[in-house]
Amino acid sequence: MERAVVLLSGGMDSSTLLHHVARRLRVPEVHALSFVYGQKHAREIEAARWQARAAGVTAHRVVELDFFAGLIGGGSALTAHGPDVPDLGAVPEAERDQPVTYVPHRNLILLALAAAYAEARQIADVFYGAQTQDRYGYWDCTRDFLERLNATLALNRRRAVTVHAPFLTLRKGETLALGLELGVDFSHTWSCYRGGPVPCRACPACVERAAAFAALRQADPLLDTKGQ
Amino acid sequence: MERAVVLLSGGMDSSTLLHHVARRLRVPEVHALSFVYGQKHAREIEAARWQARAAGVTAHRVVELDFFAGLIGGGSALTAHGPDVPDLGAVPEAERDQPVTYVPHRNLILLALAAAYAEARQIADVFYGAQTQDRYGYWDCTRDFLERLNATLALNRRRAVTVHAPFLTLRKGETLALGLELGVDFSHTWSCYRGGPVPCRACPACVERAAAFAALRQADPLLDTKGQ
Repeated sequence: MERAVVLLSGGMDSSTLLHHVARRLRVPEVHALSFVYGQKHAREIEAARWQARAAGVTAHRVVELDFFAGLIGGGSALTAHGPDVPDLGAVPEAERDQPVTYVPHRNLILLALAAAYAEARQIADVFYGAQTQDRYGYWDCTRDFLERLNATLALNRRRAVTVHAPFLTLRKGETLALGLELGVDFSHTWSCYRGGPVPCRACPACVERAAAFAALRQADPLLDTKGQ
Repeated sequence: MERAVVLLSGGMDSSTLLHHVARRLRVPEVHALSFVYGQKHAREIEAARWQARAAGVTAHRVVELDFFAGLIGGGSALTAHGPDVPDLGAVPEAERDQPVTYVPHRNLILLALAAAYAEARQIADVFYGAQTQDRYGYWDCTRDFLERLNATLALNRRRAVTVHAPFLTLRKGETLALGLELGVDFSHTWSCYRGGPVPCRACPACVERAAAFAALRQADPLLDTKGQ
């Protein structure tokens, strides 16, 4: 593979994916795409910029979807005008397969935009960092979703774009281990859904991130363990 | 069906669809969605506004996708920075199944955005005016595309959004006939891909439109037959 597009949020998984594609898969021309869609944790975009530079990508485009939070109104806790982000412990078990932090059709939208970017440049491969979680997760991070989306894209009458999600079946700790192997600097990644000045340590994203570091008996370099 | 979202470009088909959904299907709450994606014929948006008012929709949202023409660069003759729109006669037969007026992944993007709008408002049905053309057409206007997209959307773990394209197998003249039956004022629809002050009468959209009116032996009210 000579060229690829990588969806880069600035979180742990997509940052690891970016370095994986550039260095492990040795794709010489990598285009990173990030989207500002009204997420409360837009500071993850700073991390995305840092990682794109660190990976030496050919291009990094940050696309502003100014309209998005308005389009979905209060449709997600992750975006402006939505409800507060809950602590993980406050999310009922019965809601964890499509929790309040779900953003309606976000991944389909972002992947469709990435596919358009790719197709316009005759790039055939798009990567995203989805992981299937058993208990807290999203339908647009599953193998079924990936396969059905690719079946749709395959109808293109010229060269079709294929979406890849190589971390789909990995656990968060396994992706972290891969990232550490690749030398990813996780102090320049952002996970906390609340997007405050420091990670809240209680939202679903913070709890998952802490569990991944704990599983590897590593300290999270983003956290100043003395100060917090 | 109590509520629906309709993709409204301001062309003949989607304008007819809007009135079809509101009056023939008698959906009491209709939300029309239009998108400005850098198309050269953005004046179709004026027509969309007119038709939305005429149909008495509950809401009409015009979403500005300012970034889109940049995202696809020169990827389509329909958008800024792209090549000129050709006359239909200048499009080689071998290219008519995915011609230069194809916009990369546009319909997938717009339908994903419409699905997000719908899901955030607990609306389960989205309509678009796709027609499958035999000779000049697009992969994202086919039954296969519709079915595979719906198979993807069906993975939603709550109430899934379904996309409907009731005109898929109609010919342009058949849609026009339906529109005339419904009393649609076609002087307030816009088709010409070039978006000049008057229709060019030579681009693929103008030629198709003329053929539809000719098939019904009707005059196109958008054309001032004396002056042109």
